[in-house]
Amino acid sequence: MPSMGHSSDEGLEAKEVDARSLSSSHHQTQNMPYVHKVGVPQKQNLFQEFKASVKETFFADDPLSPFKDQTKSRKFILGIQAIFPIFDWGRRYNRTKFRGDIIAGLTIASLCIPQDIGYAKLANLAPQYGLYSSFVPPLIYAFMGSSRDMVIGPVSVVSLLLGTLLQNEFDPTTNATEYRRLAFTATFFAGITQVTLGFFRLGFLIDFLSHAAIIGYMGGAAITIALQQLKGFLGIKTFTKKSGLISVMHSVWGSVNHGWNWQTIVIGATFLSFLLFTKYIGKRNKKLFWVPAIAPLISVILSTFFVYITHAEEKGVAIVKHIEKGINPSSVNEIYFSGENLGKGFRIGVVAAMVALTEAVAIGRTFASMKDYQIDGNKEMVALGAMNVVGSMTSCYVATGSFSRSAVNYMAGCQTAVSNIVMSCVVFLTLEFITPLFKYTPNAILSAIIISAVINLVDFQAAILIWKIDKFDFLACLGAFLGVLFSSVEIGLLIAVSISFAKILLQVTRPNTATLGNIPGTTVYRNIRQYPDATKVPGILIVRVDSAIYFSNSNYIKERILRWLTDEEGPKKAAFLPRFQFLIVEMSPVTDIDTSGIRAFEELHGSLMKRDVQLILANLGPEVIDKLHASNFVKLIGEDRIFLTVADAVSACSPFLV
Amino acid sequence: MPSMGHSSDEGLEAKEVDARSLSSSHHQTQNMPYVHKVGVPQKQNLFQEFKASVKETFFADDPLSPFKDQTKSRKFILGIQAIFPIFDWGRRYNRTKFRGDIIAGLTIASLCIPQDIGYAKLANLAPQYGLYSSFVPPLIYAFMGSSRDMVIGPVSVVSLLLGTLLQNEFDPTTNATEYRRLAFTATFFAGITQVTLGFFRLGFLIDFLSHAAIIGYMGGAAITIALQQLKGFLGIKTFTKKSGLISVMHSVWGSVNHGWNWQTIVIGATFLSFLLFTKYIGKRNKKLFWVPAIAPLISVILSTFFVYITHAEEKGVAIVKHIEKGINPSSVNEIYFSGENLGKGFRIGVVAAMVALTEAVAIGRTFASMKDYQIDGNKEMVALGAMNVVGSMTSCYVATGSFSRSAVNYMAGCQTAVSNIVMSCVVFLTLEFITPLFKYTPNAILSAIIISAVINLVDFQAAILIWKIDKFDFLACLGAFLGVLFSSVEIGLLIAVSISFAKILLQVTRPNTATLGNIPGTTVYRNIRQYPDATKVPGILIVRVDSAIYFSNSNYIKERILRWLTDEEGPKKAAFLPRFQFLIVEMSPVTDIDTSGIRAFEELHGSLMKRDVQLILANLGPEVIDKLHASNFVKLIGEDRIFLTVADAVSACSPFLV
Repeated sequence: MPSMGHSSDEGLEAKEVDARSLSSSHHQTQNMPYVHKVGVPQKQNLFQEFKASVKETFFADDPLSPFKDQTKSRKFILGIQAIFPIFDWGRRYNRTKFRGDIIAGLTIASLCIPQDIGYAKLANLAPQYGLYSSFVPPLIYAFMGSSRDMVIGPVSVVSLLLGTLLQNEFDPTTNATEYRRLAFTATFFAGITQVTLGFFRLGFLIDFLSHAAIIGYMGGAAITIALQQLKGFLGIKTFTKKSGLISVMHSVWGSVNHGWNWQTIVIGATFLSFLLFTKYIGKRNKKLFWVPAIAPLISVILSTFFVYITHAEEKGVAIVKHIEKGINPSSVNEIYFSGENLGKGFRIGVVAAMVALTEAVAIGRTFASMKDYQIDGNKEMVALGAMNVVGSMTSCYVATGSFSRSAVNYMAGCQTAVSNIVMSCVVFLTLEFITPLFKYTPNAILSAIIISAVINLVDFQAAILIWKIDKFDFLACLGAFLGVLFSSVEIGLLIAVSISFAKILLQVTRPNTATLGNIPGTTVYRNIRQYPDATKVPGILIVRVDSAIYFSNSNYIKERILRWLTDEEGPKKAAFLPRFQFLIVEMSPVTDIDTSGIRAFEELHGSLMKRDVQLILANLGPEVIDKLHASNFVKLIGEDRIFLTVADAVSACSPFLV
Repeated sequence: MPSMGHSSDEGLEAKEVDARSLSSSHHQTQNMPYVHKVGVPQKQNLFQEFKASVKETFFADDPLSPFKDQTKSRKFILGIQAIFPIFDWGRRYNRTKFRGDIIAGLTIASLCIPQDIGYAKLANLAPQYGLYSSFVPPLIYAFMGSSRDMVIGPVSVVSLLLGTLLQNEFDPTTNATEYRRLAFTATFFAGITQVTLGFFRLGFLIDFLSHAAIIGYMGGAAITIALQQLKGFLGIKTFTKKSGLISVMHSVWGSVNHGWNWQTIVIGATFLSFLLFTKYIGKRNKKLFWVPAIAPLISVILSTFFVYITHAEEKGVAIVKHIEKGINPSSVNEIYFSGENLGKGFRIGVVAAMVALTEAVAIGRTFASMKDYQIDGNKEMVALGAMNVVGSMTSCYVATGSFSRSAVNYMAGCQTAVSNIVMSCVVFLTLEFITPLFKYTPNAILSAIIISAVINLVDFQAAILIWKIDKFDFLACLGAFLGVLFSSVEIGLLIAVSISFAKILLQVTRPNTATLGNIPGTTVYRNIRQYPDATKVPGILIVRVDSAIYFSNSNYIKERILRWLTDEEGPKKAAFLPRFQFLIVEMSPVTDIDTSGIRAFEELHGSLMKRDVQLILANLGPEVIDKLHASNFVKLIGEDRIFLTVADAVSACSPFLV
């Protein structure tokens, strides 16, 4: 295990020098002098090793440190504050902060209401469910979350993913009830998954989705969402249910002659231009960030009023028609707690939970590092999970942090999660009083709002930077992008995860090795490829292995080292130079070795013996030297074959060169 | 990718110094002097990078090197010799070698005939199928394989695995035909899988099963096999089909009163003692290795004769009864090439192929390193696969290299694969003429032979060594062992693979970090935990990151470095020591970085700026410095913040310490 026994509280014990480290300096019977003593750390007992390893894996951020040396009642208060951070920061809340929060809250409310109605349609749910999901979850999050900037609610990518996965099981029009019940079931299990991951401190699992893959996935999903909006935007009545580019384009062109509605297109195009123009203004002048933030609501009001007075709905302009009035009804009884729908809901919930977490954690980290405060990823997951569990019982579907709204919140000067509470209150008032007014809102406006919201997710500059830095990362990005675009959101996600994993596996199967040379005038040995001035030492081959040696790469490393020897010896023979007598393996990057690795070294030693080359090791880490002692490999090659540095090893070998 | 552009034939280009590496030494505008120049390798173009990376991943062993600079006809001959190595070594074959091979061949034939009959029963097939599998596959392997010591035929673990997986689909007694057809189908696809893996040079995939997991798996499978033999050994008629310990023990004790047959037990126990005694003799005196090798055949002959004259079969001693006479019939028409049985056969075949490969490759490597010749793992897979494809068409089931027979072959002085041909000829004669004589062979003898063969697979000493060296490896070993023993061979395999993967993932998620100190009297900086004499430099924190920085660990590394700073600063404050002004990250083990890693470093830089600590990097590898340049991170922190060694960085910082 990589982190075995490295936690700082073992530091004191390491001060006692282990007997073995002394013995090696006295062991001078063989033919090489010692230059510096090689340190062997004190052997830890099994329990300490295990404890340190578990601590580093699951409690790397040391969440319990504030609880140390506190009285019982203080511990209780700290515990409550850990679960509900509002009781911590709430005590320092003041009027200045509230002024910031109320302005930010009103701004994000004006942005979220039209978005919520649109996103609910992406998830194939009635519009009010989007509003419900912006009412209850933000309230819960405000009490439990630790991000000061994240805005909670339905988001485009999760809505699309949920909609796609759910309609594989039930048709949202013919089986509307089952579909909705399955949506709540999936939301419930998404919440449970998130709480579980956070509680068992498995939050690091989401790190396995690489940044590059997420960029590609988001970009693909954004384009897919925009394409789906063509239905509302062009006023097409019969539209494919698949999300792939080809079937969408087929629907669009198939209905070009009789399915498009020009009135709808005029309304949609006008307001889309307006929205994009306000976005441009907001980008040009950061102080005018509020212009694109309130533009969607203005568009809704203007277009609704326009349809109402012109009765455009009679000319084929599709309108919202009906939004249920009143706040969230209970949906506890709608969740499937048994039967095969339980399994379906669970599967969909787990996938949605992971994607939602990826987005929320990225947002939380980004804004925390901008304002330089700490976020505990695992605690955040518990908060997000709890909010989705409660949400699933109050007619909400999966909510998470929204990038666009959080950015507006940040720019509007939010101070704490109170801005979420303000937004929640506005949504409450909307649900109670204003929903009937949305009756004449044209669907084309909602489509325009969604299109203008998601185009920001297509991040060309990030993709170009990824291309510049790492070609393999770009492959993951492109794979996820094309997978989403041409197949479906699930396939894209699968591709993103697979490529991410393939990269990790490649890294551990084919680690880097390099030959080293001496940098003139120093005792430093470096990669000859990077430092062309570095000089090779005649008769000695110095190889560095750049990875821990495990079963997955031990054979490769052994064979690669032997191949360095063969490759380097070829030109030597041609030039009648002396053959290699010593092979020094620089082990500083080798942080750990397992039984397969030790076997590979034994085989390497055997092969080198047959070629009359001596194996020498330099710069061994604590785990490695410990295991080489435990396995008697040190005795096999001789304790005087192990050196502190390459320079020491070279100076010890030099007198013996023929 | 870890190996990007490191192949030796790029060496020449690296000799030209890149412009950027020079620029850094001229860039002296800021406030730190330069000590040594940091090398930046020449930028490779995309195609070179890609080529080098593919080469290192799939052609690490450089299989085409002998083909370089040869005439066309010579290339053709080399190609034929590469596919059929017999045309290479066959030309140097002589009488001395043949003497060794014929003795070894006869010895392994006497060992394999009784084992084959027993192993066929493990796979729930009629006894002749075991003999068939020792006739055709060894012949094919002799032409195509490159191991000189491996003996081909059915082996215990693969037979058990195949039997278990097949009987999940068809009952071997009531659906004997379908069962047999599915066995050939699985064998066919096992061969196809092996050829494919070898041809596309994906052989490294089997390295993902760790040595420790294999030890545990083999041990568990051996005990399971031995327990299954209790049926034949005790003469029990109704026996469980499950392989788990509990159901087997249930069958054994459930039939203790009326199901055990004392005559069978006497015969079995007598010959098992005899077999174990000869094994003991062979272990004590290596020259008598042939005693345990021929003991099984002697047991079969003696016990068959005994049953024949006493007519013990009438007293309830189960006998073989019937072995089909004659060589392998064709089974081409029995393979399922369509329908759902195709899918079943494919799945079973893939699993059996991987387990068979793991065993064969381990044997090949072991004996090759003992006699110091080279084995190309991928070419071996093609040979093994071809032999199984042909085998599946000639009524054979999955064959692979057998550990016990290969060891006997080696000790009997085999020289080449001709010993396999000799064995094959003996099996041919047996099939043609001797099979009727096996009629009265008691099943108890076959059970005794299998028990005495498999107990060697339980390798306590290896398990103890694994425990000593690496506790996590031991967990994989134990998990696989208990999984096989208490559940089934598939579950055990699944556990082995999962734990192996979990270890790889842990390694890349939670890499090691260490604080460094100066070893007195040197310019060397080492882990303070390992070298307690190393002194910390006041005002400077030196941290080493021990892994490539990828998306899977970038956040952890950033937070861990910040935690080192917090942890180390606590005691400083208490002692009124000066605070840290510089944080040096020693990057020598960081072989690569991706876009997430660079983002993490940007965030780290930002956090450190807020704490008024300067970030300094030392000892960057070629890939890393290249990517830091490409992403403009170098400009962000300043080119004069990057040093060749920690010592350089410390000496450059020291004048600025307050």
